[in-house]
Amino acid sequence: MPQNIYDDDTFFKAYSGFRRSREGLDGAPEWPTLRGMLPGLRGKRVLDLGCGFGAFSRWAVEQGALVYGLDLSTRMLNEARTRTIRPGISYLRASIDASPCRDSAFDVVFSSLVLHYLPDFATVCRTVRRVSSTGGWFVFSVEHPLYTAPRQPGWQTLPGGETAWALNDYLNEGLRTTNWLVEGVEKYHRTIGTYIDGLINHGFRLARLVEWGPTAEQIADNPEWAVEVHRPPFLLIAAQAAD
Amino acid sequence: MPQNIYDDDTFFKAYSGFRRSREGLDGAPEWPTLRGMLPGLRGKRVLDLGCGFGAFSRWAVEQGALVYGLDLSTRMLNEARTRTIRPGISYLRASIDASPCRDSAFDVVFSSLVLHYLPDFATVCRTVRRVSSTGGWFVFSVEHPLYTAPRQPGWQTLPGGETAWALNDYLNEGLRTTNWLVEGVEKYHRTIGTYIDGLINHGFRLARLVEWGPTAEQIADNPEWAVEVHRPPFLLIAAQAAD
Repeated sequence: MPQNIYDDDTFFKAYSGFRRSREGLDGAPEWPTLRGMLPGLRGKRVLDLGCGFGAFSRWAVEQGALVYGLDLSTRMLNEARTRTIRPGISYLRASIDASPCRDSAFDVVFSSLVLHYLPDFATVCRTVRRVSSTGGWFVFSVEHPLYTAPRQPGWQTLPGGETAWALNDYLNEGLRTTNWLVEGVEKYHRTIGTYIDGLINHGFRLARLVEWGPTAEQIADNPEWAVEVHRPPFLLIAAQAAD
Repeated sequence: MPQNIYDDDTFFKAYSGFRRSREGLDGAPEWPTLRGMLPGLRGKRVLDLGCGFGAFSRWAVEQGALVYGLDLSTRMLNEARTRTIRPGISYLRASIDASPCRDSAFDVVFSSLVLHYLPDFATVCRTVRRVSSTGGWFVFSVEHPLYTAPRQPGWQTLPGGETAWALNDYLNEGLRTTNWLVEGVEKYHRTIGTYIDGLINHGFRLARLVEWGPTAEQIADNPEWAVEVHRPPFLLIAAQAAD
């Protein structure tokens, strides 16, 4: 069972203040790219793994999908039920590790910035493949492995004055305990190779992989994001369940 | 036409002294992994792109393949013809950009540490798909994008004493002019996402991607390689030509 940091008072309060928490999908700069990696959702059965406040679940229902939103955090689900419940959405408290879903129950499995909290990506892939119909899509974002690799993540100024991301331990996968909003947040670093192997070895075909960084237009609107071109913050993947 | 640095006197001499140049495949620490990504070669038609001294071509012929070795460097080809010519190998001077090969002529296209010298990976993929039979394999290694990204590649010592790779410009793809053996070696940085997109968009199915680092045993034999766990030096990819 992964750590359930989203039910921590201090974490929840700080997280709730974020732009992506207040504004939903429009507050997430990677959303336009991730949306472009999804198939059309009309009439589709969609599983939203780690649904949080339900921003994606609500959007998916508006596209004509039938949606199950799963989350481990009671507080997030309470917020989701208050803010975003709609006919066609069911919210359930459950971890993906022990998904209660039936075999082949979904056409699309979606997950935004959640899977790096889970210790074993192979187990995630096995479960998602089980609950996916053949040809179904698995579209997700995670913190980019370049972001999760260092035990002390941060920028350095080089002797010449340039900015660089201090990268180490990229090939040493496993638990990273970082201080983000609160102390002791547990997440799991794995390489891009491990994400890809997990998918391919569990019956998925890779369709697209995007190492996301802000567009020139987004940087013009948010100059503080310029530094992200040195080290992409998010990894976006679309894969399809093979025969 | 990419730079043909291997015909430079100083470069050629320095390169020829490397362990992987003197010892062939056994001098390349990533070779056991790359070999494991290849299909059986008995009776297969193999194209060795950037064959260099011909170490792989010779090995492939010994496995029972019929091999074409292509290289742009006259000096490398002269060495290949002297050292490794065998019945079943043909060496040709040609760039992959303008490959003289017939459509569907090969079952396996192999390339070791060459494709990062070529400016356009999409063109490489288009050509390789054209000369590959359906179901054929494209197995290659390149310098890892984490290695090619910085304009001034190198290690830093952090304030706490840890070693880190100073990563920047990862999302800024394009020409990198570095000093390696000689000044002004031209290579091209692209992201893992771009390698994958190129393959998928040109009719390949990704089969395996390895971000290669030395094994514990290799580090025990070569303690100076320990640092490579912080930033993999090579990216190894196997893909299969789809219908």
